[in-house]
Amino acid sequence: MKKLVYADNAATTKLDDEAFEAMKPYLLNDYGNASQPYSFSRASKKALKNARQIIAECINAQPEEIYFTSGGTESDNWAIKGTFFLNNKGRIITSEIEHHAILNSTKAIESMGCEVVYLKPTKEGLITIDELSKAVTKQTSLVSVMFANNEIGTIQPIKELAKIAHKSGALFHTDAVQAVGHIKLDVKDLDVDMLSASAHKFNGPKGIGFLYIKNGTPLIPYIDGGAQESSLRAGTENIASIVGMAYALKKNCEQIEKNTSKVRELEKDLLDLLGVSNNKEIIKNGGNNTLPGTISLSFKNQNGEAMLHRLDLKGICVSTGSACDGKDTNISHVLKAIKLDEKYANGTIRISLSKNNTKDEIMIIYEEIKRILQK
Amino acid sequence: MKKLVYADNAATTKLDDEAFEAMKPYLLNDYGNASQPYSFSRASKKALKNARQIIAECINAQPEEIYFTSGGTESDNWAIKGTFFLNNKGRIITSEIEHHAILNSTKAIESMGCEVVYLKPTKEGLITIDELSKAVTKQTSLVSVMFANNEIGTIQPIKELAKIAHKSGALFHTDAVQAVGHIKLDVKDLDVDMLSASAHKFNGPKGIGFLYIKNGTPLIPYIDGGAQESSLRAGTENIASIVGMAYALKKNCEQIEKNTSKVRELEKDLLDLLGVSNNKEIIKNGGNNTLPGTISLSFKNQNGEAMLHRLDLKGICVSTGSACDGKDTNISHVLKAIKLDEKYANGTIRISLSKNNTKDEIMIIYEEIKRILQK
Repeated sequence: MKKLVYADNAATTKLDDEAFEAMKPYLLNDYGNASQPYSFSRASKKALKNARQIIAECINAQPEEIYFTSGGTESDNWAIKGTFFLNNKGRIITSEIEHHAILNSTKAIESMGCEVVYLKPTKEGLITIDELSKAVTKQTSLVSVMFANNEIGTIQPIKELAKIAHKSGALFHTDAVQAVGHIKLDVKDLDVDMLSASAHKFNGPKGIGFLYIKNGTPLIPYIDGGAQESSLRAGTENIASIVGMAYALKKNCEQIEKNTSKVRELEKDLLDLLGVSNNKEIIKNGGNNTLPGTISLSFKNQNGEAMLHRLDLKGICVSTGSACDGKDTNISHVLKAIKLDEKYANGTIRISLSKNNTKDEIMIIYEEIKRILQK
Repeated sequence: MKKLVYADNAATTKLDDEAFEAMKPYLLNDYGNASQPYSFSRASKKALKNARQIIAECINAQPEEIYFTSGGTESDNWAIKGTFFLNNKGRIITSEIEHHAILNSTKAIESMGCEVVYLKPTKEGLITIDELSKAVTKQTSLVSVMFANNEIGTIQPIKELAKIAHKSGALFHTDAVQAVGHIKLDVKDLDVDMLSASAHKFNGPKGIGFLYIKNGTPLIPYIDGGAQESSLRAGTENIASIVGMAYALKKNCEQIEKNTSKVRELEKDLLDLLGVSNNKEIIKNGGNNTLPGTISLSFKNQNGEAMLHRLDLKGICVSTGSACDGKDTNISHVLKAIKLDEKYANGTIRISLSKNNTKDEIMIIYEEIKRILQK
């Protein structure tokens, strides 16, 4: 069997082994329903409280501001639709380059009468203060701009954007699914009202995430039912996965500088090997301030799909764009929004590295890309 | 440490050890995003397809009619709200004794202008054909009645109720969270349009469930985003939990007769020991056709909370009602709906047995209840 070179960490990451060990007791023995009052459920309750505390500390929130969900997509749906349904009216501003969890949520409420404004990014994928300032009005109930783009990695000026939103009395939400656990992030300093995260993007398990909701933020539940999560998100608490998420996030946050510098170095190695900075045939998308390890490259007159398959034959996992668009072979909405020339856009692949990648793997990726380009 | 006597299986069940083993490879090694096209994701894709097939077979559905969700609560929200949002109008009929996942969903859409009718149960907790026939109109878009009640165990005449709904052109949904894996269930024979299930109620993991949606049923997504689940339920597929759910369901379904007869026998033992049939001080709620192992007992002039705590001191886990109402010490909405005399209602406990319980445990439960009653 050929060695796996996993370079699609923006799609999903490997569950941390220690996080798995932390989950095991709650999968196997301490299975008590955390909402039940008997002693057997104390372990579940304690684990839930503990995980909430750990996660809150990682992003400088209060524990009661962390609401567990089934993942980033649900968190995004909740933030967008929960705000809209609160009054069944409103005006929401987002951007053209959001993840589909946002864009298809706004599309859904547009069909219910919500006005939605889509901000245009710069060529680097940046949502500028200027664009938002022009769009925001007193009628705007919510502004939602992603922390960092999942395809091209562009990091947005969230703190400044939130300030503009607040000036007009709008709430500010950020889909930080790609950023949490990878970029130091302080919700108090950013002053965002809501923030979405997904565990499997930072070496936690799949099927679990959270929505940070700043104390006092008006929002209605999206999943109605029992009294879990302060009556704002119903459903039996998924303790094992919550514990795994907390463990993985804490570990990632503790090692964030080390991981970032490792991944940045690997990133630089690959870009240097490919000679991206002085090669007119290759464009690195996303500008200069991108997520550590997220490398979107557009090769002139190439076919991204074909490249992906060639790389796959060598055991290399990369992506053409978002995993959620796996079946869509057209140019992604993000590349369209940054108005990338079709000659390049068609030949786009996303290489997303993690702390687990090595210099040897970078060489393997480079060698294979070189071979493809030589054909 | 005292021995645990777990008799709260209607709240949650122990994850099956073999189901856990089946999950492990997808937690540890085969972590590829199932929506990605490269070879590494083949294991995830195959597991997803396989699990869907297994689950479909267990309830006699087609694989493409199974949609994975984060659990029963989400499935219920989807069925109720997805039907309403399809047209942003409608008339929905449900019952007074549904789980809060239904009741709080209908409450949410009532506030958005939906007309909701709540059917009254008989004293046994039965929703009769007659009640539904009187309530259903040509304007009714959906009827939702639970398969079996989570507190008192009453099994509803789903097939007949669905027929009445269909006669008027309404869709029929059933919250079968307490029934799936415990009662033989054939969606084709029942002719329901939608059915909710939750893995952790049948020895699968928490945080995963499904909604059966009959081919051709009009419904919009509730969690919008990527193209997963035929573009009807977005979010990265939680393969490990899906595999665990399928494993647990298959195992339970294969042993359903054996498990039922074991649990029925334990149930009879306890009722005989307590002499329920000729004791005016104890009422067994739910009538004669109840979920195997779900025993709701109301003791005259007792306090359910106090009994629960006394039993807890002996390591016995039972419930006063629904786990999701853990903090609510009032008489539950179900006991109110069946108009149980307050003298009894206040002294209600739910003992819910599983295949893992033993005759010895029944004796322990009986002895302790006897001791409490003697005080």
